[in-house]
Amino acid sequence: MDRVDVTQLTPLLFLERSSQVFPDKVAISYGERTVTHAEMADETQAVAAGLAALGVGEGDRVAYLLPNIPEMLIGHFAVPLLRAMLVAINTRLSPQEIGYILQHSGSKVLVVDTVLLEPIVDVLAECPDLRMVVQVPDAAPPLPLPSPSMTYEELTQSGAGGWREWRVDDELRPISINYTSGTTGRPKGVQYSHRGAHLNALAELVHARVGPDSVYLWTLPMFHCNGWCFTWAVTAVGARHVCLRSVDFDEIWRLIDTERVTHFNGAPPVLAGVAYHEKAKPLPEGFTITTAAAPPNPTTLARLEELGAHIVHVYGLTETYGPYTVCEWQPGWKSLDSADRALVLKRQGVAYLGADPIRVVDENMNDVPRDGQTLGEVVMRGNNVMIGYFDDPDATEKAFRGGWFHSGDLAVWHPDGYIELRDRSKDIIISGGENISTIEVEQAILSHPAALEAAVVAVPDEKWGERPKAFVVLRPGAETSEEDIIAHVRDRLAHYKAPDKVEFVDELPKTSTGKIQKFVLREKEWAGHDRRIN
Amino acid sequence: MDRVDVTQLTPLLFLERSSQVFPDKVAISYGERTVTHAEMADETQAVAAGLAALGVGEGDRVAYLLPNIPEMLIGHFAVPLLRAMLVAINTRLSPQEIGYILQHSGSKVLVVDTVLLEPIVDVLAECPDLRMVVQVPDAAPPLPLPSPSMTYEELTQSGAGGWREWRVDDELRPISINYTSGTTGRPKGVQYSHRGAHLNALAELVHARVGPDSVYLWTLPMFHCNGWCFTWAVTAVGARHVCLRSVDFDEIWRLIDTERVTHFNGAPPVLAGVAYHEKAKPLPEGFTITTAAAPPNPTTLARLEELGAHIVHVYGLTETYGPYTVCEWQPGWKSLDSADRALVLKRQGVAYLGADPIRVVDENMNDVPRDGQTLGEVVMRGNNVMIGYFDDPDATEKAFRGGWFHSGDLAVWHPDGYIELRDRSKDIIISGGENISTIEVEQAILSHPAALEAAVVAVPDEKWGERPKAFVVLRPGAETSEEDIIAHVRDRLAHYKAPDKVEFVDELPKTSTGKIQKFVLREKEWAGHDRRIN
Repeated sequence: MDRVDVTQLTPLLFLERSSQVFPDKVAISYGERTVTHAEMADETQAVAAGLAALGVGEGDRVAYLLPNIPEMLIGHFAVPLLRAMLVAINTRLSPQEIGYILQHSGSKVLVVDTVLLEPIVDVLAECPDLRMVVQVPDAAPPLPLPSPSMTYEELTQSGAGGWREWRVDDELRPISINYTSGTTGRPKGVQYSHRGAHLNALAELVHARVGPDSVYLWTLPMFHCNGWCFTWAVTAVGARHVCLRSVDFDEIWRLIDTERVTHFNGAPPVLAGVAYHEKAKPLPEGFTITTAAAPPNPTTLARLEELGAHIVHVYGLTETYGPYTVCEWQPGWKSLDSADRALVLKRQGVAYLGADPIRVVDENMNDVPRDGQTLGEVVMRGNNVMIGYFDDPDATEKAFRGGWFHSGDLAVWHPDGYIELRDRSKDIIISGGENISTIEVEQAILSHPAALEAAVVAVPDEKWGERPKAFVVLRPGAETSEEDIIAHVRDRLAHYKAPDKVEFVDELPKTSTGKIQKFVLREKEWAGHDRRIN
Repeated sequence: MDRVDVTQLTPLLFLERSSQVFPDKVAISYGERTVTHAEMADETQAVAAGLAALGVGEGDRVAYLLPNIPEMLIGHFAVPLLRAMLVAINTRLSPQEIGYILQHSGSKVLVVDTVLLEPIVDVLAECPDLRMVVQVPDAAPPLPLPSPSMTYEELTQSGAGGWREWRVDDELRPISINYTSGTTGRPKGVQYSHRGAHLNALAELVHARVGPDSVYLWTLPMFHCNGWCFTWAVTAVGARHVCLRSVDFDEIWRLIDTERVTHFNGAPPVLAGVAYHEKAKPLPEGFTITTAAAPPNPTTLARLEELGAHIVHVYGLTETYGPYTVCEWQPGWKSLDSADRALVLKRQGVAYLGADPIRVVDENMNDVPRDGQTLGEVVMRGNNVMIGYFDDPDATEKAFRGGWFHSGDLAVWHPDGYIELRDRSKDIIISGGENISTIEVEQAILSHPAALEAAVVAVPDEKWGERPKAFVVLRPGAETSEEDIIAHVRDRLAHYKAPDKVEFVDELPKTSTGKIQKFVLREKEWAGHDRRIN
């Protein structure tokens, strides 16, 4: 090789290009506010400059606790511009959980929506690395705080120094940390790289058919896998983001009309809410909905297709930048009858463009037969897999044993190469697109003085797909109530993680070695339901 | 960073994925023949195994001299699979030129169409590195050769060893060498990397809106910048290639119908031939034509748009994997009147997705003002620029002086950031999409005993856009004719490079320091034509 001049891959290149190619085209719509691509680049530079003035630099962490508003989107570019790492926190978490993430990540700055700030004021005092709280008064005025605090506007005006280059020195540098409810009691910090974010964003453009004229509605939380990288992808082609503070189906249908939305992503409850809304009407040509978490029920799918939507069904985890597989349409599927079509379409599918081929393996890391029957674990690797957990080399090593990332999800492999999940990781419940760690909920229950043993499993739910239910054995002589246990959990964890039902039992089913047999509990609850993961 | 497991970027991943995701879907159509993606992967493996048995390995060069037939497409994967470099040779070159490329590249094997073999039999004896000629009898039977020779079928059956992984050890490894007519008398070998080919292919998918259901017709030669990377891009999404042995407008219209073509690329003469053919009729929804080299004339454009085509106008060089810029549509352009629209659309535009921003600079590498008037040189860099000339570090260094690749093309920079070529590199004529080096033609003329001085310039041509014309000063007392000069050049260079006209003059216009003022000659020839580069 005579000469190599490689530009490092980073989503920053996307905003650079769009701000130069489409300076006056609207990049973000939010209520009455519109932001052009040039203005988006300016605000990104101003936020970066403000954060730099607070001492944020290479490798530092900056936490964002915001709904899907423009400031959140801009944070996806401003923090990486400093070569710092964006920690976008799930707004539904409890104050204790948010405190843990702030502490574990060692975030120097927290950018927070004023509405979300009040419940966490107390925990902020326990975050020694936190130098500054930046308040975004999107829906409520700023709060007085005992610790250093400023408004977002002050931040953007306080920056010093000139324009920063949209470049990164090393594409393998981490760009963000997304905390996940893992199978242990504590969230783990999944690190994405600039390279992975760039490549995954390009793959999203291809699979979701996003082009410069597309209009993307933010029904998917940006704190979920950085909005599955659509934060970056939509900007890559100069398309338009439509921000949305909260999921409101009336508002979604209004925006589809007035903003000429062409794309949105969401978990099954979002799809159902859109499909069966009273204002539902035919969608424009090319309208594309990407859905993950679990396949929506076939009736919802059929209803959305009737309205004219093209459905892209994907599957992945926080550790895989969101989607890793797509149920790619095959020639001939359109002519299948609706029952057969539903059977092929509910499968999780094949690896994304640019992802390494997906595998389903047995405990010795051998491929299971492609017979549509043998269960194995789904494993992934390559550019669409995280670079590791933040500050947790043991968990990283364990997750990548054998050189592949272990999803914990159980699937069969069909003869045509499509995988189909048959059981989620035993320890994860997916409820309305949110992951709930059963172990985490069990630990919360066991901190109740009356609880001796606890087992939490997923039970079917019409609206949320799955909800947690707890089976509890009480200490001899102790007394409590279902309400008391639920309230106890709600005090400690995000409310959506608390079980809807608590059943008190004399004993839990166990193996001869004393391991709880959760499948026995699940079998009973899922009797009459076709598929456990639906 | 705790852990990094990066899969190296390479277009090989594309064929791996498509052969697994769309095994039974047609990957290539060619006349009566169809090849599925699984069969394409099999044939690729067989060709690689056969080449390996001939001693081809890492870093070796394999030359291909073929029209746009399936074997040529498969070579784009088979040679890189061995970590060797594909040298796809322009089939229109003269035997001497082909011989030079075989020698300079040190190709170990030549895969050649039997029709193209006969004229070059003699030069093969002068290629000491060449071990084997592989004959593809697509349109004529194999020839007896004095040197080692085998058929393509024998090659695919002679391979040993198992299935090779679709992986490369280093994404910066060269994947191909494309020889270009540069501004010196000898072709230079432009090296692409696996990484660059991968990234540029993804960008093509986005800009040309290619999806899994697309059908791409091969009107663009695959020996031009590896078919601008569409060889790899079309396969990346599992779309279909329709091969075409030669550009025949009757056949093109037949295939658009019978094969349901959705995309093709071509230089202006191809567009004109399609647009004004007697069988021209409305094109299906979404039909996209990507055109480079020079903007087609507005009447052709309008005609194709009337037929329903979406036109993507791009610009680049061999050194930039083909397209580096695209005349990206802006909101509002559709409502411009046709004259104003033609004005914006004929511009070369802005950098591709993933390419570094393009610049127009003065001789000190400062940006020229964005005033639409000041001339400067177009420079590029980054992932969509070659990694260097093969075995020519001096030329590489010169081309990249100041850290940017110098195109030699002169342009103005408009206030909206779009560049517009005003004059090509003085030494290049683009005729029907083929580059002709004026210096090379001048040297051929000067090898004629009667010629004392020669200057070759581009003159306007209705069909080819530009054609070379020679101005020749004869030696005192010497005599010759226009026909004789033309025949002399045709004996030495590809026929399309020979001038159509030769004008004998007493003296050439020169500067005070004796430099030939070609612009004086051009001015006269282009009088009455709007724009020199059209």
